[in-house]
Amino acid sequence: MYELLNTINSPEDLKQLKREELPKLADELRAFIIDSVVGMTGGHLGSGLGALELSIALHYQYKLDCHDSLVWDVGHQCYPHKLLTGRRADFSTLRQYKGLSGFPDPKESCYDKVKTGHGGTSLSTALGVAVANKAQGLMDRTSIAVIGDGALQEGQALEALNHGGDMRDLKYLIVLNDNEHGIGPATGALANYFSRFRTSHAYTSAKKDVKKMLKVLEEQTGSFGRAVHDVLDHVKAGLHGLMPATHPGVLFEELGYFYYGPIDGHDIGQILDALENAARVPKPVVLHVLTKKGKGFKDDVPDHYAYHAAKTSKKLTDHLPKEFSRAGGPTYTDIFVEKTLEIMKRDEKVVAITAAMLQGTGLEIVQKTFADRVFDVGMAEQHAVGFAQGLKLGGLKPICAVYSTFMQRSVDQLFQELALIKCPVLLALDRAGLVGPDGATHNGVFDIAYLSMLPNMVLMAPRDATEMKAMMDWGLELSVPAAIRFPRANTPKNELPQGLGLELGKAEVLREGEDGAVIAYGSMVYHALDAVEKIEVRHGKKLALINARFAKPLDEGLFARLIEKQPIVFTIEEHVRRGGFGSSVLEFANRARLESGKLEILAIDDRFVDHGSRVEVLQEVGLDPEGIAASIERRMGLRGASGETSRRSVATGSAAR
Amino acid sequence: MYELLNTINSPEDLKQLKREELPKLADELRAFIIDSVVGMTGGHLGSGLGALELSIALHYQYKLDCHDSLVWDVGHQCYPHKLLTGRRADFSTLRQYKGLSGFPDPKESCYDKVKTGHGGTSLSTALGVAVANKAQGLMDRTSIAVIGDGALQEGQALEALNHGGDMRDLKYLIVLNDNEHGIGPATGALANYFSRFRTSHAYTSAKKDVKKMLKVLEEQTGSFGRAVHDVLDHVKAGLHGLMPATHPGVLFEELGYFYYGPIDGHDIGQILDALENAARVPKPVVLHVLTKKGKGFKDDVPDHYAYHAAKTSKKLTDHLPKEFSRAGGPTYTDIFVEKTLEIMKRDEKVVAITAAMLQGTGLEIVQKTFADRVFDVGMAEQHAVGFAQGLKLGGLKPICAVYSTFMQRSVDQLFQELALIKCPVLLALDRAGLVGPDGATHNGVFDIAYLSMLPNMVLMAPRDATEMKAMMDWGLELSVPAAIRFPRANTPKNELPQGLGLELGKAEVLREGEDGAVIAYGSMVYHALDAVEKIEVRHGKKLALINARFAKPLDEGLFARLIEKQPIVFTIEEHVRRGGFGSSVLEFANRARLESGKLEILAIDDRFVDHGSRVEVLQEVGLDPEGIAASIERRMGLRGASGETSRRSVATGSAAR
Repeated sequence: MYELLNTINSPEDLKQLKREELPKLADELRAFIIDSVVGMTGGHLGSGLGALELSIALHYQYKLDCHDSLVWDVGHQCYPHKLLTGRRADFSTLRQYKGLSGFPDPKESCYDKVKTGHGGTSLSTALGVAVANKAQGLMDRTSIAVIGDGALQEGQALEALNHGGDMRDLKYLIVLNDNEHGIGPATGALANYFSRFRTSHAYTSAKKDVKKMLKVLEEQTGSFGRAVHDVLDHVKAGLHGLMPATHPGVLFEELGYFYYGPIDGHDIGQILDALENAARVPKPVVLHVLTKKGKGFKDDVPDHYAYHAAKTSKKLTDHLPKEFSRAGGPTYTDIFVEKTLEIMKRDEKVVAITAAMLQGTGLEIVQKTFADRVFDVGMAEQHAVGFAQGLKLGGLKPICAVYSTFMQRSVDQLFQELALIKCPVLLALDRAGLVGPDGATHNGVFDIAYLSMLPNMVLMAPRDATEMKAMMDWGLELSVPAAIRFPRANTPKNELPQGLGLELGKAEVLREGEDGAVIAYGSMVYHALDAVEKIEVRHGKKLALINARFAKPLDEGLFARLIEKQPIVFTIEEHVRRGGFGSSVLEFANRARLESGKLEILAIDDRFVDHGSRVEVLQEVGLDPEGIAASIERRMGLRGASGETSRRSVATGSAAR
Repeated sequence: MYELLNTINSPEDLKQLKREELPKLADELRAFIIDSVVGMTGGHLGSGLGALELSIALHYQYKLDCHDSLVWDVGHQCYPHKLLTGRRADFSTLRQYKGLSGFPDPKESCYDKVKTGHGGTSLSTALGVAVANKAQGLMDRTSIAVIGDGALQEGQALEALNHGGDMRDLKYLIVLNDNEHGIGPATGALANYFSRFRTSHAYTSAKKDVKKMLKVLEEQTGSFGRAVHDVLDHVKAGLHGLMPATHPGVLFEELGYFYYGPIDGHDIGQILDALENAARVPKPVVLHVLTKKGKGFKDDVPDHYAYHAAKTSKKLTDHLPKEFSRAGGPTYTDIFVEKTLEIMKRDEKVVAITAAMLQGTGLEIVQKTFADRVFDVGMAEQHAVGFAQGLKLGGLKPICAVYSTFMQRSVDQLFQELALIKCPVLLALDRAGLVGPDGATHNGVFDIAYLSMLPNMVLMAPRDATEMKAMMDWGLELSVPAAIRFPRANTPKNELPQGLGLELGKAEVLREGEDGAVIAYGSMVYHALDAVEKIEVRHGKKLALINARFAKPLDEGLFARLIEKQPIVFTIEEHVRRGGFGSSVLEFANRARLESGKLEILAIDDRFVDHGSRVEVLQEVGLDPEGIAASIERRMGLRGASGETSRRSVATGSAAR
């Protein structure tokens, strides 16, 4: 079934194939990926299928282990690349716990120079490599970045494009993988710009002349260097007459790049020809390749989103336990959508902003009802926050929905545009905590640290759907910026009764107890509930449970009383320990001269957490209910250091899973 | 002397002047600013003088308090604006403690909507305001951003440019204040792009035709809306024939903007005409204005940098005490330059990167010797870090020098490009701590928090010049990313003897003592030394002094012994308390079950610190030697809550200033 593919265990094997065999290999590779990803592992199908022929061509043309260098922007595109670089046998473990990453990963292969889960980074990296090559006289090496039209809107990519356009005598190739949309339909001027040319046939014929002239030129000059470059520039200027008044390269040429394209990104022969030609140009080259996201799957993905990411087969997840006993309600994202719709119906000043995450944040659904009040600014998180500031200054009430991990792009805007002038924008940080299959690049485990360091910020996290809705209502009325963090998870199905209404910096006591107290933040409240219930069953110890609600400001009054009166107080958060919620509580206790030795912080240790299902990675870091219970038991002397509960308590306990 | 200027106490007064009186007002305003800034307050002279006529024209044309809206990108440009909006009488307090801010500040005036010290933000803010205006049907209001060609290279600005180019039916005006360079000579493709047209006279004549046609068009259509917009687009397309093959507007037009210019930014009449014309276009407009930075001062600033910032008159600072008793050595920046030069001479693989801060970081000097090995990537901090990653992957040893506050732009790149794959780039964080006159936007008081949350990062801070050099040598040989933070200050003149060589996570004991211990980080070591010496003189108490050297990893062994053996342990850092160095020590103590109640963290409280001299603001936050001594005395019961040392100790103490 995979006659050719089965012979390819490395790019060296690939280079043994005849050029005319490559399309057949492409077919097999495509079938293999669809079979693996859709049938089994799940994952980001569309972009890999779009970049499939490109992957084959790049490996056929270049030596990408230690000679030339390749960076895949937003690593989702990398599945074909992984399969061509010796990882076919492990491909069934894609995005599974301890299996292959869904992104390039230097830990897996020398063909992966970097780990790219966040978009727009490849041009900087590849430009750096190209400049380093030049500095060391390694001018036979090419540094390549493959970037989608969506990621090209990212500020970092545009910064790099500006910087690189200024350079000469570099072997730096930007492959613009133009598939009309990144994760959603592309937004912004660049997207419009590209779309104008996708159907233009007039340009194609002019292109052939360019190609001919390039060949002639090369024969005449025989070497690289500034002279050739200058001649090329003149030729290209002259060629403008042959071309339509504007052509897709104008923008790049104005910035100093040699533009080549657009070519059919599913025609390996065309790509190889283009790569050969590009190799002759001794300055930064933009090779514009038109591809179809999800190419070859069903109707080549008529729906923009359907196969951005395929779901993992239930077979692979069925054995996993529930995240916590009451899990099973709609996702937090669903609740965010439901509530945003309700708020926007009620208050016409409310608007929502996202950055290339219309589907991920759920705002796609809101947009159907409020087309003019939902703004997708493209992959541009810095601008998203600055734009939200402007909307607020202009008299609207903005909700800015960005994943916790992507908001790391906006720290400076959170500082200057919001915190510094107390500009009330409501930040909805989806995917806060461990995200599961996307792994280390996507875990949102730093937001409490980077937000709580900023004066004037209010930080909240809801324990369940009802509280999430209340926090959104409440947060929108504040006179300072506020962030609500919530996980990529289901809300609890059977909620605990709701306590008193929200009040700034006030926590909620969910359960009384005298043997200790547990202060849980957001996603950890019901996990902690399971844990304290287990401990009561196993050991007869009754722990109080507090829903912190706020990480800034803290409920100092309540926390002080707990530390004073309880024998021990635990804090639990889905976040790194350093600078997190527990750290804030500890700082408070220290300042207030409380007995801070009573505090025990349960959080994620100082390391990156890789992919797996959410349940698996929560277990790994000890933040599943059983892990929390075990930590508490150890600290309270109810369990030996070996991790086993003491004999007596095992005898009494029966609810342990 | 200031005949007209003296009559202008608000923009309403300005509007009373006749158009032909404005040039005279400009002359007076220019003289006033030069007199105040150069003779007295110091400050960022060049950009304000460049934007002077523009400021007059904008206030003459628009109602910028509550109707129209204006954002100055990188607020340095705002001095003329401040003088036209009722702040002339206070101008002599510019950048002085408790005086006027050097940036726009909503606390000062309703004409300042935002506070902009970091560049590249204005397009996002102004676009947000424009969209909010449109959403509320306020189509008679114009939202304006004034951005320099340097700031336009910033990722956020480019993101916003992309987003805004997609919009229609907006009253959104971007004034591109093109002065050929931002803080230093502009770098990158955009800079080249603009420079090509600055001397082009061919374009000017064609422009006149455009102007005529616009007038005709307006007479014919009489109203705004899509129809006019479409016609204009056609006219402009047709006009391409009249113009040179490329003209400076192509880039913006390709992105969807209506481009107008370039015009002489020092001709108020021309600007007013342009603003009138721009007002007729119902889509985003880029008005390209050519100005001279430092216009009217000496030879209009022949040196790119000389009058970016003028120094404060000694008269205003002479009364201030020394920052600490041994102060007086070269600045940390000087040491950074000296050592970078030495390293680069020794090791040809070492390269240095900065982001539009060649002068500020001192790399300008290094560049004179190593032109090819110093990279100024423009105002593009995200790219700077990604580019450094690429240089490292390509086999070089990069030093990335960015101010602490501007590195906030790169948090996500520090995360993904460096920490995640343990990419060894040496980060030099200049201006870490309180910067003085630039105030809240420029204080570098968050870097320990946003860096220490990331796994694999090494954080250091030197106590003096000798240690700074050692840390640079040592940090460059690490196999993980490392950051060295240092303040905008002079190094100590008389250094304490150097202890043992650097070892990862090892601190240095500078002074023994049994009455308590002080662990100081970086810039606070000599401040703490003064403090413990004062305390010994005043009270006979002998405190140990430790130079922490590392904020990550910590010297856990030493710190544990101190907490165990000493009656009290202070940590001191020039950083916010939340998530800072002391917070890390406290987290460690808590995890290690040490008596963390013995710890007292001296740091900056959870608020923004405004401008003033460095000595004044250090006093304000209690981090000057006397403030540190006072905090220690209070905590040790040697001083009453009123802040006075006890009677007995005052009697014994004589060294208190």
